Amino acid sequence: MSSLEALKKWFSTHKEELKRDYFSFLRFKSISTDPDYANESKACAEWLRSYIAKHCGMKTELIPTPGYPLVYGEDMRAGIDAPTILVYGHYDVQPVDPIELWHSDPFEPTERNGKIYARGAVDDKGQIFFAVAAVRAWHEMGKQLPVNLKFCIEGEEESTSVGLSKALPSLKEKLKADALAVVDFGQFDETTPAITLGGRGLVTLELILTGSNGDLHSGSHGGIAYNPNRAMAELLAKVWDDDGRVRIHGFYDDVLEMTEKEKDLFTPNVDEKSYRKEFGIDAIGGEKGLPLFVRKGFRPTFEINGMSGGYTGKGFKTVIPAHASAKISCRLVPNQNPQKIASAVIDFLKKNVPSGIRIEIKNVSGEEAFRGSADSDLAKAVCLASTEVMGKECKRVVSGGSIPIIASMCKILNAEVVGMGQGLATDDIHAPNEHFDFKRFENGFLTFARTIELL
Amino acid sequence: MSSLEALKKWFSTHKEELKRDYFSFLRFKSISTDPDYANESKACAEWLRSYIAKHCGMKTELIPTPGYPLVYGEDMRAGIDAPTILVYGHYDVQPVDPIELWHSDPFEPTERNGKIYARGAVDDKGQIFFAVAAVRAWHEMGKQLPVNLKFCIEGEEESTSVGLSKALPSLKEKLKADALAVVDFGQFDETTPAITLGGRGLVTLELILTGSNGDLHSGSHGGIAYNPNRAMAELLAKVWDDDGRVRIHGFYDDVLEMTEKEKDLFTPNVDEKSYRKEFGIDAIGGEKGLPLFVRKGFRPTFEINGMSGGYTGKGFKTVIPAHASAKISCRLVPNQNPQKIASAVIDFLKKNVPSGIRIEIKNVSGEEAFRGSADSDLAKAVCLASTEVMGKECKRVVSGGSIPIIASMCKILNAEVVGMGQGLATDDIHAPNEHFDFKRFENGFLTFARTIELL
Repeated sequence: MSSLEALKKWFSTHKEELKRDYFSFLRFKSISTDPDYANESKACAEWLRSYIAKHCGMKTELIPTPGYPLVYGEDMRAGIDAPTILVYGHYDVQPVDPIELWHSDPFEPTERNGKIYARGAVDDKGQIFFAVAAVRAWHEMGKQLPVNLKFCIEGEEESTSVGLSKALPSLKEKLKADALAVVDFGQFDETTPAITLGGRGLVTLELILTGSNGDLHSGSHGGIAYNPNRAMAELLAKVWDDDGRVRIHGFYDDVLEMTEKEKDLFTPNVDEKSYRKEFGIDAIGGEKGLPLFVRKGFRPTFEINGMSGGYTGKGFKTVIPAHASAKISCRLVPNQNPQKIASAVIDFLKKNVPSGIRIEIKNVSGEEAFRGSADSDLAKAVCLASTEVMGKECKRVVSGGSIPIIASMCKILNAEVVGMGQGLATDDIHAPNEHFDFKRFENGFLTFARTIELL
Repeated sequence: MSSLEALKKWFSTHKEELKRDYFSFLRFKSISTDPDYANESKACAEWLRSYIAKHCGMKTELIPTPGYPLVYGEDMRAGIDAPTILVYGHYDVQPVDPIELWHSDPFEPTERNGKIYARGAVDDKGQIFFAVAAVRAWHEMGKQLPVNLKFCIEGEEESTSVGLSKALPSLKEKLKADALAVVDFGQFDETTPAITLGGRGLVTLELILTGSNGDLHSGSHGGIAYNPNRAMAELLAKVWDDDGRVRIHGFYDDVLEMTEKEKDLFTPNVDEKSYRKEFGIDAIGGEKGLPLFVRKGFRPTFEINGMSGGYTGKGFKTVIPAHASAKISCRLVPNQNPQKIASAVIDFLKKNVPSGIRIEIKNVSGEEAFRGSADSDLAKAVCLASTEVMGKECKRVVSGGSIPIIASMCKILNAEVVGMGQGLATDDIHAPNEHFDFKRFENGFLTFARTIELL
């Protein structure tokens, strides 16, 4: 029986048990961005550490950070001559709003048509859990891992990795590895595997505009007071020109054009027609004139992730609000410096806010983009394993998403990096009804287990 | 003892009892715009009807409407040769958001420094209650009213008077009157009385922009999907030109310029310096080049009362929302037709929405502005009474606010109209910590009681 057959058999025998454990993992409301869920995050970390300790034969610990703890596990028995792989993932999840659009409780995993519906089903609990399950399989099948393996599973990926980024410099030795496997990415499509050789950086900030000391009656004050909602619309409308390019001074200065090598290496992974249909999109944004996969993976963006001001409840309230606010993020590409972009954005907002409207900018945060090499041992092993599991050639792609901490980890650890995983754009991650086809969970398990063996 | 002295004495004797009853009235959460409070509104109406029946010697009833009931009371004993005054007010209140800015429970009236803090303390429970108290005083002092008096107190003024507007045509006989006293207005300043001879009309609507079938991850989709928040900002930013004029085609077509007579009649009631200081306003909106009292009372406006899209909770969520929405209202001036303005607004929004963004407009509603004559018997009586009570000449003003139903009532009943009341712009009506100085409650009581006598 080949390794792959043995792994399939093990999975088949343990399927119901794995699903039960996966569901337990999903039930923790580990929403890192909202401090109300702090206890859930901490309990989730301890559950995962204990699971790895019990089932994977690894030494584990919870590494404290200024934020939520890291779940750490290691199996170094392959010895100093074998390569060391650091597996990165996260146990935190996105908020669940708008909750009314979920068809089942986001924290009570529900299986429908072979798909598991829950917040975190894919991102990233599902993905990290198939990696853990793969190590468990090797352990329970009585085989020693051919590589040294470390797990570093953080609890704040969805809120800019505050804890890990602060703890990272002191963890340089502990996390030392030849390559970083970031198990938080996806496939090319339902049947075609891919490795992800880059992700975008991210700058986030909150913008608050104030027009008066308090909310005002729009009759008694309408025509005199400058409405902060109007100021917000006028200010943010100035961000883009007619070609969808961001007009912020210096925004594109450090963006590198795609090289010929990159054009050969990467497969366009957005088909406009099916994309429009899948997501119900009639309006295309981004920079006009560029292929969609380039707009998504190789160009920076400016997005208004949230915007609010005044009365937004049921019915109507004729108010001129005191404040309007927006949550803004920019995705960055390699060679862009987050601090520089954040400064440029802040300058632009301050210069363009209507006169007399008070502006406050807070919670500014940023991380660089990252790129990995297609020629690293880990990249080659992941490609081989995924082709073996899925029966098709492995594509190489760049993600439009961001894992803020990865660029720093690669730099500090001086490690290669590969993004792997089983996600698809149709999984509704970060959205209502996030779901993961359990078949892809199995493929992720098999690919991860075979990658370790092939290294 | 003069009539005024007798009224002052009666008020002084009944002060604590009146305050207790006023507080009971304020405790009802009669938020008409939110169906969750339907039972509170109905209970509030019955409480008020019963109070008038018990204390004012009036025949009362709850008149059903397609919305909340009207509290109706009448005393027609003055006979057919005496004038009939219809007193309009409302027992519903605005929502209380943002609740966290209230210093005390909005529905548990609290007295601090002689001021009563509660939602509705002024608008309009406080004002209608001093009118009821004035009728009660005449009744308990054993005097027959020199005029026929009707109360019509509705429960949906804050949500465009849906019920009353539908019931009105069938109530033409019942509400028949020579003049309408709208007890929902204010004074010129702390020490100077005013009558209000007009209010603005109102068009309200909700706007929803949709970019995709569901919320999207701003990494995986950023650069491709057109963000509805961006579309909302771009669309609404187009509403105004650089001079603060609304660019909607036809918006000002039917606006009448102020006549010389109006310029003589009305006293400017906005002092820029004190206005800026009072409300903490650095940015002035409205149409550049016009005096502030003209912008507020004699010109139409377009306001974004609420705007929301995407994640607006704590922390951050990197989402491209499926929808963005806005609640919009326009204040209208005499001679503007609400249907015509609503159509112009809707046309503008549909024409200017970014291509491919789906637009939905709902809950469109509108009412005309109204104007009353300074020469009517009621206007003269209110002026005289208020001068007697406050010791200063009564100013004539136009309100920037709207009481949507008044124009229809004047037309259908063919009645004169005067706006009266004790409100001030600093009372925080429609805002957190709405409050009413109890001294002004007394002045309102005295003015209303004397007005009846002087007619």
